[in-house]
Amino acid sequence: MISFETAFQKVMAFATDYGTELVPLKNASGRVLAEIIAADRDFPPFDRSTKDGIAIKFTSHTISNRVYSIAGLAQAGSPQQELLDTGSCIEVMTGAMVPKGADTVIMYEHLSKSEDGRSFTLEQEVKKGQNIHYQGSDTGEGESLLPTGTVLGPAEIGVLASVGKSMVLVKKLPRIAVISTGNELVDVDQTPRPYQIRKSNVHSLQALLGKEHVVADEFHFQDSLEKLKQELQSVLDNYDVVLLSGGVSKGKFDFLPEAFEALGVTKAFHKVLQRPGKPFWFGRHNTSNTVLFSFPGNPVSTYANYHIYFIPWLNKTLGVHAPGFDVFLDEALANTTDLTLFIGVSTNLENGKLIAQRISTTGSGDLLALAKYDGFVKIYPGQKIEKNALVPFVPTKPLGE
Amino acid sequence: MISFETAFQKVMAFATDYGTELVPLKNASGRVLAEIIAADRDFPPFDRSTKDGIAIKFTSHTISNRVYSIAGLAQAGSPQQELLDTGSCIEVMTGAMVPKGADTVIMYEHLSKSEDGRSFTLEQEVKKGQNIHYQGSDTGEGESLLPTGTVLGPAEIGVLASVGKSMVLVKKLPRIAVISTGNELVDVDQTPRPYQIRKSNVHSLQALLGKEHVVADEFHFQDSLEKLKQELQSVLDNYDVVLLSGGVSKGKFDFLPEAFEALGVTKAFHKVLQRPGKPFWFGRHNTSNTVLFSFPGNPVSTYANYHIYFIPWLNKTLGVHAPGFDVFLDEALANTTDLTLFIGVSTNLENGKLIAQRISTTGSGDLLALAKYDGFVKIYPGQKIEKNALVPFVPTKPLGE
Repeated sequence: MISFETAFQKVMAFATDYGTELVPLKNASGRVLAEIIAADRDFPPFDRSTKDGIAIKFTSHTISNRVYSIAGLAQAGSPQQELLDTGSCIEVMTGAMVPKGADTVIMYEHLSKSEDGRSFTLEQEVKKGQNIHYQGSDTGEGESLLPTGTVLGPAEIGVLASVGKSMVLVKKLPRIAVISTGNELVDVDQTPRPYQIRKSNVHSLQALLGKEHVVADEFHFQDSLEKLKQELQSVLDNYDVVLLSGGVSKGKFDFLPEAFEALGVTKAFHKVLQRPGKPFWFGRHNTSNTVLFSFPGNPVSTYANYHIYFIPWLNKTLGVHAPGFDVFLDEALANTTDLTLFIGVSTNLENGKLIAQRISTTGSGDLLALAKYDGFVKIYPGQKIEKNALVPFVPTKPLGE
Repeated sequence: MISFETAFQKVMAFATDYGTELVPLKNASGRVLAEIIAADRDFPPFDRSTKDGIAIKFTSHTISNRVYSIAGLAQAGSPQQELLDTGSCIEVMTGAMVPKGADTVIMYEHLSKSEDGRSFTLEQEVKKGQNIHYQGSDTGEGESLLPTGTVLGPAEIGVLASVGKSMVLVKKLPRIAVISTGNELVDVDQTPRPYQIRKSNVHSLQALLGKEHVVADEFHFQDSLEKLKQELQSVLDNYDVVLLSGGVSKGKFDFLPEAFEALGVTKAFHKVLQRPGKPFWFGRHNTSNTVLFSFPGNPVSTYANYHIYFIPWLNKTLGVHAPGFDVFLDEALANTTDLTLFIGVSTNLENGKLIAQRISTTGSGDLLALAKYDGFVKIYPGQKIEKNALVPFVPTKPLGE
């Protein structure tokens, strides 16, 4: 049986570039940018007033009590006006172009208006050039704003909008099939017989993939070798990635490895020195290059291996840099096995520190414990951990939520 | 002008319960549970084999070298079998019901099969009751599994599936309208004239609301009092919440406060002692109870106030508990103003600690800086901060991403 590290490297070696596609801006949230976004003009595109007030030409006479007669009004979204002399001013609104000939903006709060409404008097000292957001001061035209590989969050969507990207080139997501196996499984809306249970893993996997913006198709395969082979062939023809749960243990009806082999899927490994998730089968089809993550059927193993293997594989596939991090484990722990252990924990941010606390569980069938996990801490074979030591962390929920 | 704390309390006081709705399980991800989920049967629902091997009745003769003749095969998903005598065994697969009369499961790895294939010989010590996941050991029928207020993540979706919730009662989300104002704004796919800029705030807000599973409708209002009043009236009639950006400063064309008043919206406050986001207008309509968050028009102010006010308001509205937390700021800082400052930072998890680092910016028009923020640190008026002190944090991205 291979070590966790070897298994992980083999999975990562099959990261695949699925190319790029153009999507409308409103569907780009959460996707990974596949082009360099450059400024299509200066930002701001013009000398922009940052206050509501008046624009003047600064001279040595621009001092308190100086009076300026009102020569015009510049609204945001209107063409540039022109200030013709140093004794006049043009009223300017926030976001408006500073008038030609003006170089300084004074906010209303620092002015008093004459009774006839035709002039303003300065009531405070003025600094030449104040209250102007200068053309190109954020970025110059042509400058790179967002690099490829950027995950497009709300702020990035705002940047894309401001440079006119109504269509955005993003990394294509793999076409994914999620497959449950096992004759004991019935659908959610069915009443199980005493020896049956309802499907849950495929629903969890769909929800997990949804967070990665993948809409996966769902299949259920019965435990019959011939049927498995037929149905799997069609999946291999139509999908880039297959996530399976169940059917890869030592049981008499665990036909998947045999079906994989018969259909030309080359095994990278089967079984890993880890707990949970040991009977994990991983491979790739010889011609279609479809990648198969075949997880053990119990909920904890499928959930753990999805986060341990699939998410890093997907990040590498999409070119997303997601550095790992450590957490403090609030108890001492000794791993006396030859397995890499992944222990479900909840995490808390206490005084700026990320503290992990073990969640008690009845074992790898314990679906309920999963809902309490924020992630898994990783303990190496033979490793002894002191209380409050830093240990590597595999998150399963966003931190701080 | 009111303090940040007073403003925050006024916003939170307008949290509103919008009721509940039934949604299909596949659309329930990320929603907030509005019913108690109880186990519809024991978990597991039967004594379940956790290994592939044989089931036997344990006796004082169950020792190494003991031979068991094979009396049957129990597949997962098949009705319960019966073991009739202590000299026989029934082969059981993982997930199968333990046969009636059997009480112990031995995995294939601890057995050898006879040449004629009719019996197994024990090769290891056996513990009575081993390798059985007992009926009800995770949860008993009727026990509560998920409380109301649970945010439904992938693990919770798995729990819901397993108890047959194909339809789930969740908290209704408010109907939200997002409105941009300002004559200087043009659409993303238009080429702005020199004095125009493209809309960006509404796109950021849409992407932000999408993360909360809200599909908001989008409007643009020109800077004309009469038009504003007409269009706003229809929005007040049809939406629970209105998020506006722009039109609430001191400018000649900042008609929103006047329009709000004319239409029966009561102002809770206008302007807060904070930076960015000072000219924030907040109120509620007298009869429709529509809540209006009217943010200043510049990108940083809108983005900041969305996270500072709207997200806590939405969490309270939905009954979601989202405790705040602190981060270490990696520099000394003195707030010499009478404003509560929100300073944009990036965060890193270093050695289990969450360290914040200030992002340099050219001001509140700086859309590009937003993409680098992981959140804002909050510095109180007059507060002096030592280097590496803990400060309150307003996250704008999930941590560790």
